[in-house]
Amino acid sequence: MTSAPPTWSFLGPTGTFSEMALRQVAPDDVVLAPCQDIPTALDQVRSRRAQAAVVPIENSVEGGVNATLDHLVASSPLVIAAEVAVPITFVLAGRPGTRLEDVRAVSTHPHAWAQCRGWMGHNLPETVYVAGTSTSAPAQALAETGRSLEQVGFQAVLCNPLAAQDYGLEVLAAGVADKSDAMTRFVKVTRPGRVPEVTGADKTTLLVQLPHNRAGALLDMLEQFSVRGVNLTRIESRPVGDALGRYRFSIDVEGHIREERIQAAVIGLHRTCPVVRFLGSYPRLDARPVTVVAGTSDKDFQVARAWVADVLEGRSL
Amino acid sequence: MTSAPPTWSFLGPTGTFSEMALRQVAPDDVVLAPCQDIPTALDQVRSRRAQAAVVPIENSVEGGVNATLDHLVASSPLVIAAEVAVPITFVLAGRPGTRLEDVRAVSTHPHAWAQCRGWMGHNLPETVYVAGTSTSAPAQALAETGRSLEQVGFQAVLCNPLAAQDYGLEVLAAGVADKSDAMTRFVKVTRPGRVPEVTGADKTTLLVQLPHNRAGALLDMLEQFSVRGVNLTRIESRPVGDALGRYRFSIDVEGHIREERIQAAVIGLHRTCPVVRFLGSYPRLDARPVTVVAGTSDKDFQVARAWVADVLEGRSL
Amino acid sequence: MTSAPPTWSFLGPTGTFSEMALRQVAPDDVVLAPCQDIPTALDQVRSRRAQAAVVPIENSVEGGVNATLDHLVASSPLVIAAEVAVPITFVLAGRPGTRLEDVRAVSTHPHAWAQCRGWMGHNLPETVYVAGTSTSAPAQALAETGRSLEQVGFQAVLCNPLAAQDYGLEVLAAGVADKSDAMTRFVKVTRPGRVPEVTGADKTTLLVQLPHNRAGALLDMLEQFSVRGVNLTRIESRPVGDALGRYRFSIDVEGHIREERIQAAVIGLHRTCPVVRFLGSYPRLDARPVTVVAGTSDKDFQVARAWVADVLEGRSL
Amino acid sequence: MTSAPPTWSFLGPTGTFSEMALRQVAPDDVVLAPCQDIPTALDQVRSRRAQAAVVPIENSVEGGVNATLDHLVASSPLVIAAEVAVPITFVLAGRPGTRLEDVRAVSTHPHAWAQCRGWMGHNLPETVYVAGTSTSAPAQALAETGRSLEQVGFQAVLCNPLAAQDYGLEVLAAGVADKSDAMTRFVKVTRPGRVPEVTGADKTTLLVQLPHNRAGALLDMLEQFSVRGVNLTRIESRPVGDALGRYRFSIDVEGHIREERIQAAVIGLHRTCPVVRFLGSYPRLDARPVTVVAGTSDKDFQVARAWVADVLEGRSL
Repeated sequence: MTSAPPTWSFLGPTGTFSEMALRQVAPDDVVLAPCQDIPTALDQVRSRRAQAAVVPIENSVEGGVNATLDHLVASSPLVIAAEVAVPITFVLAGRPGTRLEDVRAVSTHPHAWAQCRGWMGHNLPETVYVAGTSTSAPAQALAETGRSLEQVGFQAVLCNPLAAQDYGLEVLAAGVADKSDAMTRFVKVTRPGRVPEVTGADKTTLLVQLPHNRAGALLDMLEQFSVRGVNLTRIESRPVGDALGRYRFSIDVEGHIREERIQAAVIGLHRTCPVVRFLGSYPRLDARPVTVVAGTSDKDFQVARAWVADVLEGRSL
Repeated sequence: MTSAPPTWSFLGPTGTFSEMALRQVAPDDVVLAPCQDIPTALDQVRSRRAQAAVVPIENSVEGGVNATLDHLVASSPLVIAAEVAVPITFVLAGRPGTRLEDVRAVSTHPHAWAQCRGWMGHNLPETVYVAGTSTSAPAQALAETGRSLEQVGFQAVLCNPLAAQDYGLEVLAAGVADKSDAMTRFVKVTRPGRVPEVTGADKTTLLVQLPHNRAGALLDMLEQFSVRGVNLTRIESRPVGDALGRYRFSIDVEGHIREERIQAAVIGLHRTCPVVRFLGSYPRLDARPVTVVAGTSDKDFQVARAWVADVLEGRSL
Repeated sequence: MTSAPPTWSFLGPTGTFSEMALRQVAPDDVVLAPCQDIPTALDQVRSRRAQAAVVPIENSVEGGVNATLDHLVASSPLVIAAEVAVPITFVLAGRPGTRLEDVRAVSTHPHAWAQCRGWMGHNLPETVYVAGTSTSAPAQALAETGRSLEQVGFQAVLCNPLAAQDYGLEVLAAGVADKSDAMTRFVKVTRPGRVPEVTGADKTTLLVQLPHNRAGALLDMLEQFSVRGVNLTRIESRPVGDALGRYRFSIDVEGHIREERIQAAVIGLHRTCPVVRFLGSYPRLDARPVTVVAGTSDKDFQVARAWVADVLEGRSL
Repeated sequence: MTSAPPTWSFLGPTGTFSEMALRQVAPDDVVLAPCQDIPTALDQVRSRRAQAAVVPIENSVEGGVNATLDHLVASSPLVIAAEVAVPITFVLAGRPGTRLEDVRAVSTHPHAWAQCRGWMGHNLPETVYVAGTSTSAPAQALAETGRSLEQVGFQAVLCNPLAAQDYGLEVLAAGVADKSDAMTRFVKVTRPGRVPEVTGADKTTLLVQLPHNRAGALLDMLEQFSVRGVNLTRIESRPVGDALGRYRFSIDVEGHIREERIQAAVIGLHRTCPVVRFLGSYPRLDARPVTVVAGTSDKDFQVARAWVADVLEGRSL
């Protein structure tokens, strides 16, 4: 008797960068569950219809992906189990036979458009932009043979090379991008369970809401990390949502929640901030071992605690 | 002989929240220059085709408006001259005679969709979302009498009440929003000139890029403010754009660049950060006077400087 | 069968301020062991010849008492078990029959001289100062009937009123002091044992040596306290002794080593500083309850630790 | 017509370490003005009876010299113009013909005794200590031929080798010291005048009193230095004198008051602390050039200020 293959959700349809990321970390027999948007992909995991979701979290040009940052913490807990980076390059693609001069309107996801806007302004300055829900959805729409180009509303799409291939489109221009080395980082998200073991090259993701009406609250929060020698690799502000000027912060730090210095910092945050959410400790994609500053190793903490225990009993000072 | 009335650009078309904001701060005889996107609206000012632009910068639900944050500093300098907040409420509107049960697809700007997604999921769970470039553009498209609903691609839009009225649409549902008190803050942007005088209730907007590869750089940056008693009211991280994990920060602080403590903080940033951009000192929309911490008034600085001058000459210690 | 009464050492001879302090905290049947200097008094406790020592640690005019600060940590551990403050007022006293105009030389302890120097300069400007090893020793010497005034070397002493009485001297002037409200704080010192329970109005004394050759080491050390909301009430620099410019710090903080925030701070110091010595948690002499900043109570720590334990097991986030 | 040679005061009598220090920095034709104590030596300069005073400020074993730290700021301003370090080694000396076994009492200055106490305890454990006002005064007293040893009250002194020679005493033991490499740092003190020019290897001495009743005041004070990259080389706490637990700090920093970063730090202190006293900028005795952290050079400040001036006029952002 064999168990059923796992189902993983992602931002669909077929051919998105999310699918490319998923294929780097999913088992071969994974069942794909493409979703129309990121909240839906995450909710598939919450509702146990999927074992994991792969969603974008950060783009080197556009920054944090708000839908992911916000919906990871929107209802029942989810955690990040892995991360993967995908280079972002686009092709301009149309139905076979399309010529560049035929292109009067182009569709893609707004983030993709933002990354190609300079190229488009230079090469096809008269082209109108039609927003799409992903980089693949417009390609899929364009490929539908039953609809006229007039019905579709655009003659070309900006999508990734695999989507063009998947949907039988012809590449009108390759390597379309304002920055040639754009990257998007994706995360594998699961329901929480026992936290995995330390690998020595880990990251931990946290969501922290600052106490409001206290000058210097962000400074105080950062000191909870610095005083334990914990390095931040990402900090994104997100509105709390109830008023202008109130923030919570999505943070990545080097290290693992099973390590003492991370626990000490997190305990400090929990004591002083109204909301702290743990969003996972997982291996860094670059596998670079974390630099542990002198005096912040697990052993340093354990030796110090043992010394305090001795002090309390008058055994040693 | 009279001068020509001024032209102000904004995120169009007619009926957007941007236009609503503009009308709060523009002269009565302003010539409206609606633009298809935020970068275009800002470039109208840079190219002197408009005297000012009004663009959204921050939403209480969705956070910073990336297009504004990034394009304010994308090329030649612009500064913020004023700010204004607009409450965000949507109506669901369709062509006259449309019934709720006819609505299978709805279009609006992605930020608007994000703010109504819960309401839509609850009231019209089967409805498909079609992304638009503003909250008014889909209303304008729906109002075009020459196109069939099939050609338009959606039967209803989420727009502000004025847009529904301007474009002759019928309101199917009013007060559509997941959070009833959502606000968007807009800014009036101009070309830089002599900085205006202090009002005592001012804000200053800065863009600061951190030195990379230095642990604690964000903490150091915040200390440049705290050591002079300067309070931050907003901080938004934005990617530098060249690699994952590198940030610059868009910051609002209480106070005016003509005040000593702000100058001292800004000089500290300029000394230690690779990029500092000044984006304007302007009156706060709440007109609440800035609290000046003891020891940080202009007079405190002037007295201290005079004392140092005396010390250098041996006149007093 | 009864146990022998305890022996307490102090800076002698009879009549010193140290004896006055001792009598405030010692049992009635205490056996007095006056010592010629502070190191000797402390060593009496180390060698078990005394159960406790009472020594001065801080004067409001002269500052820290170096002999106490240094010798508390000079060899085997000692801890502070209590503190007591004594108002410091002096009398100028001589052999019966002495007149003010007879006084050409005065003797007392250098600290006492420092506190009376202004008064002496104003009232007896021609008088020579002869250093003594305590405020009582010169009184004792002056009282020795077998020695001529010429042999003694001075005609009057500055001592406390009880010493003048004890040694049969006549008060030539009372209330001698440059500052009328000078205080000296004394500590009761014992061998270490199980640390006593929290009273809620406790102090903890520590000795911390900074890592050298690291700019900002003092700032880092202080942050170990501030990040846990621990308030310092005293900080005294003392040379390490091996070179100019190297320091260790004697520190009093509000709170008890059995409290979580103090333990966390002390663990942080132990991790990052080459030397940390615990010198006792004991009731404050003013019995004023310690103010515990929000987020730093024992319960705050325990709740946060329980939350981390849940996180590790995937029980809650 | 020639000007009269200058008079310099110092802690006398002849043969003290202060005189040794003075001779390293005074002109050859200096007129020596030995004083009975440090306050007197400093007051000679205030009253224009001396052009300069040379006094000890810090000892590597005993720490700061309180009399100097306190009296430098006790009345009208004085400044430090130079510093010099003297190795501290003692000889045990007596009248010619004295044998070690004759020595039952020894006199010297209490600081000197503190540095030789271990040696004495080991070699002459039965010897009584008689306090002296300097290391030379007891030598001078012992050398007075008109007094019997009984009248003097001791048979030997701990003084520096020159004093033994000056007063015709015989060395009973040389190299007497618990730490063989003890150093004392002396300063040349003058009335304030125009501050000298920067040498690039300068120190600045300040006295700063903290605002009381403000938790973290010391941390805030240190940040005024750290935020401008200014390194502290010495910090000594001194009581304010009016109550237990109130401090001012004597501080040495690397750099010169004519340098921008030092001025900025000092202005910050002046704004936020109730008392700041400037005590001189002068060449370091080790002549090691000051390390200027990136972003804190005079040019960095000037460029930043020029940029702010441009910003105010709209010339550049």
